[in-house]
Amino acid sequence: MLLKSNIEDLKKVLKKDNILFKEEERYCYAEDSANIKTETSLPDLVIFVETTEEVQRVAKYANQHKIPIISRGAGTNMVGSCVCTEGGIVLNFSKMNKILEFNPDDMTMKVQPGAVLADIKNMAESAGLFYPPDPANFKVSTIGGSIAQSSGGAKSFKYGTTKDYILSLKVVLADGTLLRLGSGTVKDAVGYHLNQLIIGSEGTLAIVVEAELKLIPKPESNALVTAYFDSIESAVNGVNGIIRERIFPATIDFMDKNAINTVEKFYPSGLNTNKECMLLIEVDGFASSISTQLNRVEKALRENNASDIKLLFNQNDMEAVWTARRASYGATAKLAPDVVTDDVIVPRSSLSKMVKGCKDICNKHNLQVCIVGHVGDGNVHPQIALNLDNDEEYKNLMDAKSEIYSLAISLGGTISAEHGVGIEKISYVDKILDSNAIEYMKQIKMLFDSNGILNPGKIFKM
Amino acid sequence: MLLKSNIEDLKKVLKKDNILFKEEERYCYAEDSANIKTETSLPDLVIFVETTEEVQRVAKYANQHKIPIISRGAGTNMVGSCVCTEGGIVLNFSKMNKILEFNPDDMTMKVQPGAVLADIKNMAESAGLFYPPDPANFKVSTIGGSIAQSSGGAKSFKYGTTKDYILSLKVVLADGTLLRLGSGTVKDAVGYHLNQLIIGSEGTLAIVVEAELKLIPKPESNALVTAYFDSIESAVNGVNGIIRERIFPATIDFMDKNAINTVEKFYPSGLNTNKECMLLIEVDGFASSISTQLNRVEKALRENNASDIKLLFNQNDMEAVWTARRASYGATAKLAPDVVTDDVIVPRSSLSKMVKGCKDICNKHNLQVCIVGHVGDGNVHPQIALNLDNDEEYKNLMDAKSEIYSLAISLGGTISAEHGVGIEKISYVDKILDSNAIEYMKQIKMLFDSNGILNPGKIFKM
Repeated sequence: MLLKSNIEDLKKVLKKDNILFKEEERYCYAEDSANIKTETSLPDLVIFVETTEEVQRVAKYANQHKIPIISRGAGTNMVGSCVCTEGGIVLNFSKMNKILEFNPDDMTMKVQPGAVLADIKNMAESAGLFYPPDPANFKVSTIGGSIAQSSGGAKSFKYGTTKDYILSLKVVLADGTLLRLGSGTVKDAVGYHLNQLIIGSEGTLAIVVEAELKLIPKPESNALVTAYFDSIESAVNGVNGIIRERIFPATIDFMDKNAINTVEKFYPSGLNTNKECMLLIEVDGFASSISTQLNRVEKALRENNASDIKLLFNQNDMEAVWTARRASYGATAKLAPDVVTDDVIVPRSSLSKMVKGCKDICNKHNLQVCIVGHVGDGNVHPQIALNLDNDEEYKNLMDAKSEIYSLAISLGGTISAEHGVGIEKISYVDKILDSNAIEYMKQIKMLFDSNGILNPGKIFKM
Repeated sequence: MLLKSNIEDLKKVLKKDNILFKEEERYCYAEDSANIKTETSLPDLVIFVETTEEVQRVAKYANQHKIPIISRGAGTNMVGSCVCTEGGIVLNFSKMNKILEFNPDDMTMKVQPGAVLADIKNMAESAGLFYPPDPANFKVSTIGGSIAQSSGGAKSFKYGTTKDYILSLKVVLADGTLLRLGSGTVKDAVGYHLNQLIIGSEGTLAIVVEAELKLIPKPESNALVTAYFDSIESAVNGVNGIIRERIFPATIDFMDKNAINTVEKFYPSGLNTNKECMLLIEVDGFASSISTQLNRVEKALRENNASDIKLLFNQNDMEAVWTARRASYGATAKLAPDVVTDDVIVPRSSLSKMVKGCKDICNKHNLQVCIVGHVGDGNVHPQIALNLDNDEEYKNLMDAKSEIYSLAISLGGTISAEHGVGIEKISYVDKILDSNAIEYMKQIKMLFDSNGILNPGKIFKM
């Protein structure tokens, strides 16, 4: 809990307009996009930072007074990573949202943490370049959030995740020290990769104030194949067949029957509602390669009993299918007062077991579930519709989540692929990580933040 | 210095044949592929390990008795990373060289640290898959060495480096503890990325005993373009033009006039000796895309005054050019009793300044230099021919290296792109890394290895 004197101290060193302390203003920062009941609290203060020096000043002060700092971009986090557990200061980065440098010939871009992914992508594309990571919320989410959560997205299968596109970081430590990590070059073999340690650390080790991104040439053309299957196994076999044809699709997404039917119920999109699941396979590359790729994808799909195969070339037709796929969360939300999504990942050879397991677990607990995911990666997003205010349903949800995580672990996978741990999965971390590894992670946390002020209550129970 | 009693103790817990203690045997491990004079020493003992348990046993014993452990694969390291500075035990991994699992459908492979890159590549290719990192010594070098040094290679421009292909690691810590880091899935957002901290740490934090690799579909076709330019600037402009054509070549290598002439002198290969430099541009992908790519590469090269452009499709023709490029190190070696290569990297927009600077610096110090490198990455390898036993020449070399590193740093680059720091560049680390970052790296080192037994005398002066 901040004292009045703390607020007065901070007012002296920051612009007055950049500090929110009224209760109704602070309420806007009480939640992120996670939908579980947790012991969160209101922030005591919200500060819009404008410069690195301000971040350093706030950190130094907060460290001296042992006040928590929770960095926040767009607040689209799904696991409670940017909410307070014990009050403190929310550092709002929405005013540090600039693209500082764009060097098309070097294929690099320097950005502030509040820069929105869509703006980064658009700027890159203006020069024929590409920033691939594409979490579903990329139109509003920030690069700072992406770095904190090591975000992936539909195109991770071919293009990797955020960690593969960060050349260097500038970070402010808990005590206000500014560190530069990594060089701006695409290869760097000098010292330990501390920037990779910060990526995915959910704001618990340092506050990112600048990032240098690696860009790649943008593929000039793409096309989408949709196909339906009588079982998840056949769909996975179809994907394995595609790889054997030496095709590397940018995206291989899927929707299960419930997801398809729910979308068609609320947002009719012309999807086939009679089959067990649907694959959405996007290939990209040179225009001259697209028909080769489509022929081979179609061959592999046919050999694995796909039906209703459609090849789409027109951007509007493709966008209509992606809109239907993305609508699945909103459609599921219409089945009940609330919707909760999850994020588990297994080796692709275990994907059908994971999907069937999710269904069985949700059935057992009387929960409606629509399953979507990224087949290429083995990444499954079960979307569960329920009434969070109904205690029995909430208990069922918690039990189902626990069983889903256990299943993912038993299949050689893990409990979060691209959303992070945050508050939501904190009780499960010791089920997947080596206990000695957790011990070393905690010691690294203590090394960087001995007072534990940076995003307390996330990832580990310290 | 190991005591006789230490050797007797170790003999009791290891197979007798796996321990080398005779001086003439230990001499074989006194050096690696670095060519500088350093304060190295003979190992006291060389142990061929066969199992993880043996590694744990040796580490535990060595830690108790504060005996250095230096892990070694093929010894192809260029910066003195796998030699002893104060005696100790060389752990030889050549008997832990197995491919433990290959899962083509999951596109993953589990390997022991002594597995040779060529074997990994061949196994992957047998199923149409691809392990991209390709240091020039890949026919003999091991994955353990690649992980230690974060190795790159000619294809890093498009495909990244070792760090982009490690899904999980099993490592033995200084005290013998076994840690599993990372999951075997292609995305993982649970806890800190400790595996990325180990990659590139040159054996100073932990001993890698198993790695799970990510593979990708192997591009089905490739072709090579060679072209000559009157200046490095024109060559770099040509590369920028290629990127603007949205071509993403697998490799963009170059040789300067000296390198070309030296190759032609000793290994005539039909290269054009009249121009300032040569580019070797390899494109890959679907066969149906190759002519598109070649047309655009040729257009961009012509627009930037390239001459003598050749398009090669035949694997033998391509291999002949690569053989000439790779021969440049051996050819340079024929100019003088010794040859020393270096490894610096700058943003591509500064590449011509870096190459010209290397030439000027070597001229100033009366050193013969042939320059090759990876233009895509901005990575320059000056190969310097001299007599290391001539004190004046050696001093000139040291002065030239120092000036070359300063230039790389002043151009926004760094002192090692893919070779590492080892012993050779240890005095320069504080010129490129943030002093606070070095402090944190040292504290992490202390956390993992409080007795400082793992590869002492490398990367940092502790």
